[in-house]
Amino acid sequence: MSGNSFGTLFRITTWGESHGKGVGVVVDGCPAGLSLEEKDVQIELDRRRPGQSAISTSRQEEDRVEILSGLFEGKTTGTPISMLVRNKDARSGAYDAFRTCPRPGHADFTYHARYGIRDHRGGGRSSGRETVGRVAGGAVAKKLLSQEGIEVLGYVTELGGIKAQIPDVQHLSIIKELAESNTLRCPDPMAAEDMLKALDQTIKGGESLGGVAEIVAMSVPPGLGDPVFDKLDADLAKALMGIGAVKAVEIGAGLECAQMSGCQMNDPIVWDKGGVSFESNNSGGILGGISTGSPVICRIAVKPTPSIASVQRTIDLSTGEPAEIEIKGRHDPSIPPRIVPVAEAMVALVLADHLLRGKVVRV
Amino acid sequence: MSGNSFGTLFRITTWGESHGKGVGVVVDGCPAGLSLEEKDVQIELDRRRPGQSAISTSRQEEDRVEILSGLFEGKTTGTPISMLVRNKDARSGAYDAFRTCPRPGHADFTYHARYGIRDHRGGGRSSGRETVGRVAGGAVAKKLLSQEGIEVLGYVTELGGIKAQIPDVQHLSIIKELAESNTLRCPDPMAAEDMLKALDQTIKGGESLGGVAEIVAMSVPPGLGDPVFDKLDADLAKALMGIGAVKAVEIGAGLECAQMSGCQMNDPIVWDKGGVSFESNNSGGILGGISTGSPVICRIAVKPTPSIASVQRTIDLSTGEPAEIEIKGRHDPSIPPRIVPVAEAMVALVLADHLLRGKVVRV
Amino acid sequence: MSGNSFGTLFRITTWGESHGKGVGVVVDGCPAGLSLEEKDVQIELDRRRPGQSAISTSRQEEDRVEILSGLFEGKTTGTPISMLVRNKDARSGAYDAFRTCPRPGHADFTYHARYGIRDHRGGGRSSGRETVGRVAGGAVAKKLLSQEGIEVLGYVTELGGIKAQIPDVQHLSIIKELAESNTLRCPDPMAAEDMLKALDQTIKGGESLGGVAEIVAMSVPPGLGDPVFDKLDADLAKALMGIGAVKAVEIGAGLECAQMSGCQMNDPIVWDKGGVSFESNNSGGILGGISTGSPVICRIAVKPTPSIASVQRTIDLSTGEPAEIEIKGRHDPSIPPRIVPVAEAMVALVLADHLLRGKVVRV
Amino acid sequence: MSGNSFGTLFRITTWGESHGKGVGVVVDGCPAGLSLEEKDVQIELDRRRPGQSAISTSRQEEDRVEILSGLFEGKTTGTPISMLVRNKDARSGAYDAFRTCPRPGHADFTYHARYGIRDHRGGGRSSGRETVGRVAGGAVAKKLLSQEGIEVLGYVTELGGIKAQIPDVQHLSIIKELAESNTLRCPDPMAAEDMLKALDQTIKGGESLGGVAEIVAMSVPPGLGDPVFDKLDADLAKALMGIGAVKAVEIGAGLECAQMSGCQMNDPIVWDKGGVSFESNNSGGILGGISTGSPVICRIAVKPTPSIASVQRTIDLSTGEPAEIEIKGRHDPSIPPRIVPVAEAMVALVLADHLLRGKVVRV
Repeated sequence: MSGNSFGTLFRITTWGESHGKGVGVVVDGCPAGLSLEEKDVQIELDRRRPGQSAISTSRQEEDRVEILSGLFEGKTTGTPISMLVRNKDARSGAYDAFRTCPRPGHADFTYHARYGIRDHRGGGRSSGRETVGRVAGGAVAKKLLSQEGIEVLGYVTELGGIKAQIPDVQHLSIIKELAESNTLRCPDPMAAEDMLKALDQTIKGGESLGGVAEIVAMSVPPGLGDPVFDKLDADLAKALMGIGAVKAVEIGAGLECAQMSGCQMNDPIVWDKGGVSFESNNSGGILGGISTGSPVICRIAVKPTPSIASVQRTIDLSTGEPAEIEIKGRHDPSIPPRIVPVAEAMVALVLADHLLRGKVVRV
Repeated sequence: MSGNSFGTLFRITTWGESHGKGVGVVVDGCPAGLSLEEKDVQIELDRRRPGQSAISTSRQEEDRVEILSGLFEGKTTGTPISMLVRNKDARSGAYDAFRTCPRPGHADFTYHARYGIRDHRGGGRSSGRETVGRVAGGAVAKKLLSQEGIEVLGYVTELGGIKAQIPDVQHLSIIKELAESNTLRCPDPMAAEDMLKALDQTIKGGESLGGVAEIVAMSVPPGLGDPVFDKLDADLAKALMGIGAVKAVEIGAGLECAQMSGCQMNDPIVWDKGGVSFESNNSGGILGGISTGSPVICRIAVKPTPSIASVQRTIDLSTGEPAEIEIKGRHDPSIPPRIVPVAEAMVALVLADHLLRGKVVRV
Repeated sequence: MSGNSFGTLFRITTWGESHGKGVGVVVDGCPAGLSLEEKDVQIELDRRRPGQSAISTSRQEEDRVEILSGLFEGKTTGTPISMLVRNKDARSGAYDAFRTCPRPGHADFTYHARYGIRDHRGGGRSSGRETVGRVAGGAVAKKLLSQEGIEVLGYVTELGGIKAQIPDVQHLSIIKELAESNTLRCPDPMAAEDMLKALDQTIKGGESLGGVAEIVAMSVPPGLGDPVFDKLDADLAKALMGIGAVKAVEIGAGLECAQMSGCQMNDPIVWDKGGVSFESNNSGGILGGISTGSPVICRIAVKPTPSIASVQRTIDLSTGEPAEIEIKGRHDPSIPPRIVPVAEAMVALVLADHLLRGKVVRV
Repeated sequence: MSGNSFGTLFRITTWGESHGKGVGVVVDGCPAGLSLEEKDVQIELDRRRPGQSAISTSRQEEDRVEILSGLFEGKTTGTPISMLVRNKDARSGAYDAFRTCPRPGHADFTYHARYGIRDHRGGGRSSGRETVGRVAGGAVAKKLLSQEGIEVLGYVTELGGIKAQIPDVQHLSIIKELAESNTLRCPDPMAAEDMLKALDQTIKGGESLGGVAEIVAMSVPPGLGDPVFDKLDADLAKALMGIGAVKAVEIGAGLECAQMSGCQMNDPIVWDKGGVSFESNNSGGILGGISTGSPVICRIAVKPTPSIASVQRTIDLSTGEPAEIEIKGRHDPSIPPRIVPVAEAMVALVLADHLLRGKVVRV
């Protein structure tokens, strides 16, 4: 059934397949009066765009966005914002082999199981290309958040087992500058260098690598989140786990909390400049599913790209026989750097939604 | 705004506070014709109930469920199933101190920030007692799933840093027997013994411990999940991260995927007894957000109970002064064993919802 | 699937059958800080209650409401408000005959067609008793609206073909006094007398009568409604058509607009005391699906009670034979007076929802 | 907030303004495997298209639809179907006068009240042009319904006070032929002639006329509808009242039921060819909010076009002064004939949604 919308008040509906006519999104619920132009969206799409470097797929897509509705004289009108990006450089031939032989680690078999029919070209709807709509919608959310002083930033903290040293998130502008200065979006220049070397080896070996990305939101006001089910962390988990290749989501201390004691985990509450503050941030800015006012901190584990050059065992659904495949298309050897703008978009969408939800809570 | 419903087709709405008149749930969307009696629900509530052992809160609640609607002659009728559990043993006096002084690690401050008003007694709506409704709703979901041969089981795999050895999930009946035979719900008897010792020390020190639980669903048919946003793993992540004290959710290989290569991660696809099968299950039974037919495997990291006996620093919201608190109520020193039935309920609810959603996908 | 919730931000979920243990509602999304006590709800339930007069069913139900959650020290806390009314005077025996023979004009056959199973006693879920939950939820909505100065009032304008003369809605307090002073809730005392006589004849003849009710909302601010699908009039139409026995919904000029010209229909726009005003109100206070600031005016046509004493032809689903039935239970000979509080509740729920939705529309 | 989606399982999201770049729709939840091509949609858009005759607006729009996603080799894939129609013949200059002076009977003032900003050109989002997306989405719904043998047809039954004689709906193919053979979509040729004459006079007088349209759905299976809120008639009422200019919705006997007795209103239940049947159809094919298997019959009252040539009184929002306007754009003098395909689309969307909802009701 219908599963292509996300959000309640600030709501996106995405559409499009990898090798169809295009991809896009309808943003519904964006408040009226927000300044917005195609450039705001294009900047984010450019960050997501393939063909940016040696380590990403060589598919060339200009990804030029066209805003079709919802704007008047440079401002949103409260009506749906429809955005369209045409597909250009789609080479479907490379995918013929996978029409009946599902690729391991991909959604080929499961789409077959669910729908009985699928557009196998480039992965169809399950392609990473689907995230164009998310990023375009997220760009509008980011613009809305920026009005409230909220900033969302993502970066790679680990790749192929190499862990980066990340400065404290209070120094976000430095992190941002460092992260955006290399193709890996890793704010630790030395780790980034090591990661690049590892990737180089990986490409030569026809292999791929996994990694971890962290997404931070600064200046989130306390009081966002709707217990007991639409908690802020629950919605973030859904938003992030729903990105292809993500296999784990952490908030704040995350998995490490399992080995902490209550004394270590609890963040002491203090007064700071007349406001409520927390001396540490193991909670990741969320308690009881509601924002605390501290930075919101999420991390995602990203599996290695399933498209690898080596021979893999699979089956042929048309013959009922075992089969072997080699994947020769154009693929990223490691996805975390390209997932970063997508994850930022998803976090921004969740926050924009809860920002609006926060306006209807009290008499 | 309204955040107390979960699910789309199989939908629960929970209500109730720790020290109010009771807690409960309305299940809407359960198909007609399902055999159901109060006993089915009571069994699950008994597993969740406090006062079961030395390691859980000494609050005594009989937690007797009353089904108020939706049944006729022992079967569901397709109309809403309302269930009520009255609160009995609520000692509010113990909470007076926290009326104006938010407890670290709890939702006290954030509820205050969101609503401006809160029922501070026993944590009010943010209390673990809220999960009674989830477990009651989950019991109905489990009954529905059992009709399709689907079984959901949770157990503790780590506590206070002590990791259990878990048999392969194919031996689920053994795991179940082992897990339910000790108060820690840990299927590794020796680890369980060590955990109990650690807990004993922890209680004496006025401290608390975190841990990890795994939830497995067997015999989930391939084809459940609604990309691109209502993916099965995305909905599981939301369901599990929305349980209080959970700070991380993993699917399949989870966080470890970050250090794997594509060759290691991808599960080879093979024919097995005429059906499609996977030689390994790093995907945790989900690819592209849709079930593969392999066991669905989730893990959650549970933070140490924030209610600890030691002195903690906080603030007094009424005076604007710093404050110190000691939490003397009746609390579990470690939550993972009691979270297990709640996590099972949430996984069952997600699966029941997607099972119904799966019925409307093809012409 | 789940169809027992209404509203988006201010949301109710009702449950319960006529002859089950009780009926009730969970209100989710009511803002925190609203003064509310059981008395506020009881007043509305008393207006809906059966057994009030000779012209309504003689079933005796005290309909005492118990608020189970969501309140703290007399105020709403932003958490779900669960309300319960136990069933008392249920005489199921009278319904045995209809277990296999669906009553004409009732939902017996259609529930059978949909669910395959149904609680036939008293109509089960399709009974008018189900509206207890709506009225209880509507009472909370009314309390919220009253804070903004919005008042909702319904009354009978036609019964058995006898049409009442209704004063201009600007004189709502007079209308209210007149309407609530007779059992028919008709603000035209002379028409009410005629209606009572007609009803008397109808009861003697074992028959029933239809009628029309009007529901007015005063002081609704301009700007409520969410085009293009969640328009204010669209949501009102759904709310009102969803009440059992309603077969038509009109807004403003309603059906008569079909015979008007543009000049007659259009309401001229004028300045009035510094604000925007309309010289007439054929629009019924709604243009383009958004409130204009004029009174919101709805009318519903209510069919004659299907439960009549005369012999009716039907079928026996168990034998496949034709059958005849006589309905001897306790029934209202005409429903419009008792539908009035239900219709008010539904209008109040729609307005409360859109009042909250209105808070998130602009930057 | 987001109000531009309709439906739960079969769900459309529309977007676009009258004088923006285009209009469109995303259909989410259409089952996989349905044969669909642009021609299926184009046929319905052509029925809705302006510029077809003397009695409709002379705006010329080719309204060529492009399906951008969701199809593969002529079949739906279960993924979102995005459809785009570019605007061509938009003459915005004609609307400059209304930028600050709201037109009576239009949504100009209410959009201003809601959003503070609006695209005044051609009515922006509140234009009838918005219905292109509805009709395109409805075309997909119709295709799905046709697979189950369900047919939806609308026609004009009254215009300017002239009432048509309509054959029994069992003769739907005759009604269809008659209705589609004249520009008024009235299946009574003589009445149609009178209506045309009345319209001719109306145009000369710079005036407009209201009317009534009936929409019928044949072969709807019994058992569709989700009480107690998502009843079939409730959803139809919402769908139809949400069309611009509709001021009343009737089901079956509609408003006339107010003057009927129970004996007259109740449809006797009989066996017919081994199935359950009803001797009459005052219920309009719906009892208790669930379809009976009889034809579903709805009627809508459509107000006269608010755009009339005569001088009307309004206000100037920029100066705070009274104002007068004359509307010289290209407008239909009477909308019912053009509303027919839109109303058909909305009825088809409701039925498609409930058809899918019906698949998840029983174990």
